[in-house]
Amino acid sequence: MADNAEIAEVTKQVQDVILDEHGQPLSKNALKKLEKEKLKKERAEKDALARAAQAAAKASTTVDYSKNFYGKQAINQSADRPGRYHERLVDINASRAGEKVWIRARVQTSRPTGNKMCFFQFRQSSATIQGLVVFDETAISKQMVKFAQNIPSESIVLVEGTIAKPLEPDASRPEADFEREDAQFSKVNLHTRLENRVFDFRTITNQAIFRVQAGVCKLFRDFLDSKGFMEIHTPKIIGAASEGGANVFKVKYFDTDAYLAQSPQFYKQMVVCGDFERVYEVGSVFRAENSFTHRHMTEFMGLDLEMAFEEHYHEILDVFDELFVYIFKGLEEKYAADLEIVHRQYPFEKFQYLPKTLRLEYKDAVALLRENGVEMGDFDDLSTEIERKLGQLVKEKYHTDFFMLDKFPLAVRPFYTMPDPKNPGYSNSYDFFMRGEEILSGAQRIHDADLLIERAKAHEVDPESVKHYVDAFRMGAPPHGGGGIGLERVIFFYLNLGNIRRVSLFPRDPKRLFP
Amino acid sequence: MADNAEIAEVTKQVQDVILDEHGQPLSKNALKKLEKEKLKKERAEKDALARAAQAAAKASTTVDYSKNFYGKQAINQSADRPGRYHERLVDINASRAGEKVWIRARVQTSRPTGNKMCFFQFRQSSATIQGLVVFDETAISKQMVKFAQNIPSESIVLVEGTIAKPLEPDASRPEADFEREDAQFSKVNLHTRLENRVFDFRTITNQAIFRVQAGVCKLFRDFLDSKGFMEIHTPKIIGAASEGGANVFKVKYFDTDAYLAQSPQFYKQMVVCGDFERVYEVGSVFRAENSFTHRHMTEFMGLDLEMAFEEHYHEILDVFDELFVYIFKGLEEKYAADLEIVHRQYPFEKFQYLPKTLRLEYKDAVALLRENGVEMGDFDDLSTEIERKLGQLVKEKYHTDFFMLDKFPLAVRPFYTMPDPKNPGYSNSYDFFMRGEEILSGAQRIHDADLLIERAKAHEVDPESVKHYVDAFRMGAPPHGGGGIGLERVIFFYLNLGNIRRVSLFPRDPKRLFP
Repeated sequence: MADNAEIAEVTKQVQDVILDEHGQPLSKNALKKLEKEKLKKERAEKDALARAAQAAAKASTTVDYSKNFYGKQAINQSADRPGRYHERLVDINASRAGEKVWIRARVQTSRPTGNKMCFFQFRQSSATIQGLVVFDETAISKQMVKFAQNIPSESIVLVEGTIAKPLEPDASRPEADFEREDAQFSKVNLHTRLENRVFDFRTITNQAIFRVQAGVCKLFRDFLDSKGFMEIHTPKIIGAASEGGANVFKVKYFDTDAYLAQSPQFYKQMVVCGDFERVYEVGSVFRAENSFTHRHMTEFMGLDLEMAFEEHYHEILDVFDELFVYIFKGLEEKYAADLEIVHRQYPFEKFQYLPKTLRLEYKDAVALLRENGVEMGDFDDLSTEIERKLGQLVKEKYHTDFFMLDKFPLAVRPFYTMPDPKNPGYSNSYDFFMRGEEILSGAQRIHDADLLIERAKAHEVDPESVKHYVDAFRMGAPPHGGGGIGLERVIFFYLNLGNIRRVSLFPRDPKRLFP
Repeated sequence: MADNAEIAEVTKQVQDVILDEHGQPLSKNALKKLEKEKLKKERAEKDALARAAQAAAKASTTVDYSKNFYGKQAINQSADRPGRYHERLVDINASRAGEKVWIRARVQTSRPTGNKMCFFQFRQSSATIQGLVVFDETAISKQMVKFAQNIPSESIVLVEGTIAKPLEPDASRPEADFEREDAQFSKVNLHTRLENRVFDFRTITNQAIFRVQAGVCKLFRDFLDSKGFMEIHTPKIIGAASEGGANVFKVKYFDTDAYLAQSPQFYKQMVVCGDFERVYEVGSVFRAENSFTHRHMTEFMGLDLEMAFEEHYHEILDVFDELFVYIFKGLEEKYAADLEIVHRQYPFEKFQYLPKTLRLEYKDAVALLRENGVEMGDFDDLSTEIERKLGQLVKEKYHTDFFMLDKFPLAVRPFYTMPDPKNPGYSNSYDFFMRGEEILSGAQRIHDADLLIERAKAHEVDPESVKHYVDAFRMGAPPHGGGGIGLERVIFFYLNLGNIRRVSLFPRDPKRLFP
């Protein structure tokens, strides 16, 4: 809207991050204030325009010689397509000083100075830039400066300007300094963020978190594609509760009832029995758990894989090992800038992992825990607290935040888990941990129908209720196994964000269905 | 299981495809027959083993000098990991004649010849190979040949053998010839396939169809990644029916009701308003349509994209144009072998498209239809039948199976569609068609809260019911738009498969919840 604005060098640094993420707009009070300010500014804007018009009508000395260079645009309904190029903020830098460009950006902050100048902070995704509108005798009228001073924060503006090195370095981020000394940011709690999620997305930290999330999915698929895996999509509406009746959402399905899949478990196995030997899925998973912990949601993204193997289920662990190392390396190499941004707001210890992932057997983990004062039986399951303790002990002993725990007790695993043929009471199953919290569960599966029925009965699962699944193993099934990764958990623990809801665009828990 | 089997050259041709896809195993009768045969063979196998044991006990002249070289393995519970390399069938060819290799494969067919030989067709995913077990005085006993002759079809076998050029080319596929003259394959209807889906997956045609499906997803993402789009995951459980109450599945959600998302529409727009300027999603979509047509399912995969634009929503059409051409070219270049396999079973005319996609305005399509005898008003919606007619007319006139229909009448589109600023009664919205059937619907969206409320009221949508959505436009929203592609439809129409269920691993319609 403002012609000839001076646009200063791009500033993507620390200070901007803190300003943006911890600033007024995100606290409840600040939101109210901002709304008030917005209304006030809109009124002020109207008043100013009205006064300007009056003044212009009164005296020809106050004629607005810039009136064609600014104003509020009509809603863009795609009436015209002049083909004017809009520069991306990330592409603007000091070496281009003197160039005249157009940008489309958000007003992050503005700071009027007297009646002749207005400083702006413009933002586009994670990139920010300083702007300056300043009165002159021929091109920029006082009316135009006034108009610019009254543009509300978060407005989207079209601006033509000349790229320049910063004119007044000391003035380039006074509000950032102000904000950093202000303790007000502690008021921006998670609830407020989630209630105002669209606004919250605009913070530079959130822009980075969700780029990292997309990155993990991409790295997951790229690696598995390179290893001969095929992507599949299995149904989320299913005829019978796939893994027992607990924690399953019921759906009204025409004249009958259906359920939401708690995992693609049975279906991905059936696909492997259909000779798609190596498959993966990135899909929604639903759990009706009435739980409000920092690491549970009722809906999340599962990164699942399932594969036939030749001799031993450790072939699956080999694939997972390479996969995770590929993801961790990929994040460090391709998403370093985003990790740095997140780190500024949510400081975390650098994630440590080994080039060849540590594989610990359950019995050895129990021994390690006992050595360190934890009392537990050989076949007891691990509580969340004990898992964390184990994570600490492993970190101290092996210097890694990531490890595989293999050979779980058979009794604590689902009925379709393959028993260990050599060690009674144990099974060919595993969990993986990041910073002491579980992010993957998997196993070799039973691929023999008779043994499967026997194990179902032992777990009090009615074999009739899983008939379609059991039948898949009746006409020749390869030995196979796999695992399911919780996408949000991987990012949550990698970035140490404190609450899994920060990693979900629109998180769902028993009390949260909106927005 | 059989030592020293002669393994012949890989045969991945046409004949195998027809044999495999049209063969007995897939008809209902054939399935029963196969089951019977399996039981019969299993009994026969046991009997034979018993008899062999008896005979061996009786007379030392019939001692089984091969007894350590074959047999039924115990269930693989990952007891050992000798590290023996199993060759992939695709990697075996005549140039390797003489090499001794191990393979893990399925028995597709076997053909005993007297009591001294047995021919096999082994299969692994889409690759097949011939095998031969033949009696000799020192290594392969008659008992071993007998055992081999009794291995049931669809068994998974471990075989050591020597690679050889085909010994008897004429005998390599007698059953295929037999099958091709047999009309029995017409009995393999879709219902039978879907009821026995795991078995059905093993056909070479289905292996190809689902590789093509994975390919379309990969091409979709690769292209959009290269254009600065970011992958997102929006919730599938939502608090209010997103696009009106019709056709929505209701979920019991703890103490309240929730719904399954009919599309990610509102959420992807909210993410764009959160300054993730270009986003896409590959996710499940749920529609409670009580419909049994060839092109409707109650659950399918949506390929959605949404983007802010600079000047005009045709910028979105430009992205889609490049995207689809990239996908069509990618299929031709990278999936040619799979297309060829599918084509053998489901012949289709090569899919025609233009390097720059045809964009037809709705009013011009109506004029074209009228010229060709269709009676309809300017603002009437298109029926499925008229869409097909239009597809034919466009194909004749422009020689393309793919086109964009732009500027739909406003009244037939959802309330959030941006009205055309220049032509009253029309809108900035579009559908894309493949072979005369709709595969994408999209539009410029209204990004102004007040106009959105006005349009909601005009469509009798209560603005309160979409409050979270409308609120997203109150703090500055960029002009934006996008579209949703039905993944299965794209593949279904591209391959001309006659029924969309063929493109879904486990399709869902009002009567199908299993397997």
